[in-house]
Amino acid sequence: MEPWRTAISNVEQNRILIRGRPVEELMAGGNFADVAFLLLRGRLPTAAESRTWNAILIAVADHGPTPPSTMAARVIASGNRRALEAAVAGGLLAVGDAHGGAGEATMHILRRALAMIRDQGITAESVADRLVDEYRSRGERIPGIGHRVHTRDPRTEALWAIARDAGLAGDAIEVMRALAAAIAKSGRPLPVNFDGALAAVLVDMGFEPAIGKVAFLLGRCAGIAAHVLEELTRERPMRIEVPFVYDGS
Amino acid sequence: MEPWRTAISNVEQNRILIRGRPVEELMAGGNFADVAFLLLRGRLPTAAESRTWNAILIAVADHGPTPPSTMAARVIASGNRRALEAAVAGGLLAVGDAHGGAGEATMHILRRALAMIRDQGITAESVADRLVDEYRSRGERIPGIGHRVHTRDPRTEALWAIARDAGLAGDAIEVMRALAAAIAKSGRPLPVNFDGALAAVLVDMGFEPAIGKVAFLLGRCAGIAAHVLEELTRERPMRIEVPFVYDGS
Amino acid sequence: MEPWRTAISNVEQNRILIRGRPVEELMAGGNFADVAFLLLRGRLPTAAESRTWNAILIAVADHGPTPPSTMAARVIASGNRRALEAAVAGGLLAVGDAHGGAGEATMHILRRALAMIRDQGITAESVADRLVDEYRSRGERIPGIGHRVHTRDPRTEALWAIARDAGLAGDAIEVMRALAAAIAKSGRPLPVNFDGALAAVLVDMGFEPAIGKVAFLLGRCAGIAAHVLEELTRERPMRIEVPFVYDGS
Amino acid sequence: MEPWRTAISNVEQNRILIRGRPVEELMAGGNFADVAFLLLRGRLPTAAESRTWNAILIAVADHGPTPPSTMAARVIASGNRRALEAAVAGGLLAVGDAHGGAGEATMHILRRALAMIRDQGITAESVADRLVDEYRSRGERIPGIGHRVHTRDPRTEALWAIARDAGLAGDAIEVMRALAAAIAKSGRPLPVNFDGALAAVLVDMGFEPAIGKVAFLLGRCAGIAAHVLEELTRERPMRIEVPFVYDGS
Repeated sequence: MEPWRTAISNVEQNRILIRGRPVEELMAGGNFADVAFLLLRGRLPTAAESRTWNAILIAVADHGPTPPSTMAARVIASGNRRALEAAVAGGLLAVGDAHGGAGEATMHILRRALAMIRDQGITAESVADRLVDEYRSRGERIPGIGHRVHTRDPRTEALWAIARDAGLAGDAIEVMRALAAAIAKSGRPLPVNFDGALAAVLVDMGFEPAIGKVAFLLGRCAGIAAHVLEELTRERPMRIEVPFVYDGS
Repeated sequence: MEPWRTAISNVEQNRILIRGRPVEELMAGGNFADVAFLLLRGRLPTAAESRTWNAILIAVADHGPTPPSTMAARVIASGNRRALEAAVAGGLLAVGDAHGGAGEATMHILRRALAMIRDQGITAESVADRLVDEYRSRGERIPGIGHRVHTRDPRTEALWAIARDAGLAGDAIEVMRALAAAIAKSGRPLPVNFDGALAAVLVDMGFEPAIGKVAFLLGRCAGIAAHVLEELTRERPMRIEVPFVYDGS
Repeated sequence: MEPWRTAISNVEQNRILIRGRPVEELMAGGNFADVAFLLLRGRLPTAAESRTWNAILIAVADHGPTPPSTMAARVIASGNRRALEAAVAGGLLAVGDAHGGAGEATMHILRRALAMIRDQGITAESVADRLVDEYRSRGERIPGIGHRVHTRDPRTEALWAIARDAGLAGDAIEVMRALAAAIAKSGRPLPVNFDGALAAVLVDMGFEPAIGKVAFLLGRCAGIAAHVLEELTRERPMRIEVPFVYDGS
Repeated sequence: MEPWRTAISNVEQNRILIRGRPVEELMAGGNFADVAFLLLRGRLPTAAESRTWNAILIAVADHGPTPPSTMAARVIASGNRRALEAAVAGGLLAVGDAHGGAGEATMHILRRALAMIRDQGITAESVADRLVDEYRSRGERIPGIGHRVHTRDPRTEALWAIARDAGLAGDAIEVMRALAAAIAKSGRPLPVNFDGALAAVLVDMGFEPAIGKVAFLLGRCAGIAAHVLEELTRERPMRIEVPFVYDGS
């Protein structure tokens, strides 16, 4: 069997190196989110990146019991009282395309838009108009815009302010605003949701699109765990019921 | 259908409160691990608690590709290239009793030991001797002690030093040391592993035992995600092979 | 690395043996449940065992959308539209102790009861009275008895009739009836639920308790998959809502 | 909250109907795979369909310890000894695109090929040549052809013989053979693997492509469960090791 290879960490007897740094050094005075950044990116964040990255993880950490991930985790915990890892993992499985996946999808669009701006020498507004037309002609929605609960997502402006103060706000935020404006031109105005907000910031920070989903999984893991513990400690087993109608023949 | 109830977060249109605090406030200058603490504990950590809690999550964030959780995640990613949530969640499913569960188990023992000290007015040493005898007579091992790789776990002393500097080191660390000493008396000395180290600190910080496993799940989620991305970007599908022998009839 | 060992199957180039039998031979005229029996037990079932084992898997295959496993799977599918394996697996994660785990738990009790009858020469009735007293004194319920929906579980008598006709009904069914009778003596009569029914039959068939849970996982996998497909094809993404109240401070 | 709706099953007190049929009726003399067919398809299979569908589930039930699904399940079981549902579910999570997903992908191609034959009045051979050229020009492989272990997959001819004897073999099998022949013309001959074989038969039986993955999940669930039990009963915790090299800086 060929040995596996990894550039992430090296574990020898009595010595653990994470991206080349002794774990004890990272532990002393460290910030967990920074070490997650180190693991994912291969280097520690700057102070500006750390503030912004922490803000992203905080923003996605919880959104109440009703998103599919948290709801599924609580339902699983109501049947499986002894394996909280099953409930937490089961919750993360709901983070797919319709829930928690828009960040990654939006990052792909933003990177394409930035390439169009750069290669064709056109403005963010023109690119936004073209993309909105293109999606509309296919009968699809641009991800990252609109929310089932919020008409103005409080996390979006908060994150963009943090990124701006940190000096990390760049062209992707501008494109994201242009996309929302292009949509508003031909219909009702929709807010940039937090998937769109984090996508723009992660692109401006130089991350690959997959990090859009990883940030959501890691941040929401905290909220899901809290809800699972609340289910296990405050609620009786099997308490969850849904009304249903049978409409078969 | 009865409404669900939660004391964790409240989501209304354009307003997200986490344990009563607006999410934008938490995002500004915040530390993600502190918000995880807030979600799990119901209040923000003190500065001392924040340093120690961050150090715990950092310490468990990665241990190379060979623990069952990380290995399973990479194996899943080698077969399922399009759903990284499946690989991350699958990795967390390996965090059970033999892997990543010793923290919770040790917290139960430490709480029992502290109750014995308090109620019976005996020393940590006496309690440790009794517990080691009790486990030995049942043919069981005290969890939190011994490691398959390390003879001295570099994370243990690092965490206890941080807890001591932060003023959070308490009786549970003393009991953990006494347990290791009691075992050493009648055999080869074994190190307090990091499950034992974090268990002692989490008990001294006043956490419930379930947090022993939650801390492991949340911290390791970062390392697992990094390994899954490495598998997806550096390795070809289905590359993992294991040699096996058939020994059936 | 030491090779793994397995007595289950042997795969060589152009040749697949399951418990020593060529897979093509099993496929011809075969019954899938029988091959599951072969995989789990190491030999093919007799005709009587096949009828009974198929009946068990059929009985647990579906129970509508409201058990935690099926509900969780549909919730996951509502957020993750592209990875049906995530929804199916997430559903199975809810099969723990409170849901789908009573079969295994009951098998442990029945085996203990049968050992008491054999070793102490007492009747099923005496053993049942003792066990009911023992559980009551600990404030616990005997598993396998009572159901949140049914006052008479239609699957229980159906399975026991099949086992009787097949000549497989044995002492464990008798003990299960005695346990229900002992409970009825001191309170309202409760039905033997299907966990109790399958537990008795699996014990009489000589299976280990873990098979109580495996049978549930394998059978319910079919129903969960059907519900996931129904969710994906008939319902819109993110359609599931639950009412909730915030009761934090 | 709007009630959920389902056409799969109806559960009332003391009465369980699966696709309109009392569960007791299905249990009596029933075949579990047939009930899975009923759940997924909405009607019971004919005798011919039952033979073929059972053969498909049997064929995919196990392939030794080395496919990612089974390997992941055993790795999870080595760390999580108390929650076999976690190991079984974790195994199923590896059934994605590269492993176990080719059946579904091939069904999409076969349906497209059949539509081309019907709409354009051309032969299976012409369609196969076109599709092979199209995939080659995109640098992609046609799924369902080629295997990492087998040069002739013993399950393929076995399944097609069963389908032929049952009178269910149709045009999709012919297209599948034509695809393999078209590939062989311009390179080394590759076998139709079992993903390709089951895809052709499921298309000929009128199933939707998603059933390609569902059949794999349901069938393999049996093998995974057997391997998990073998891991738990024959092997010590944490026994699995992989050699690795650190190649970071």
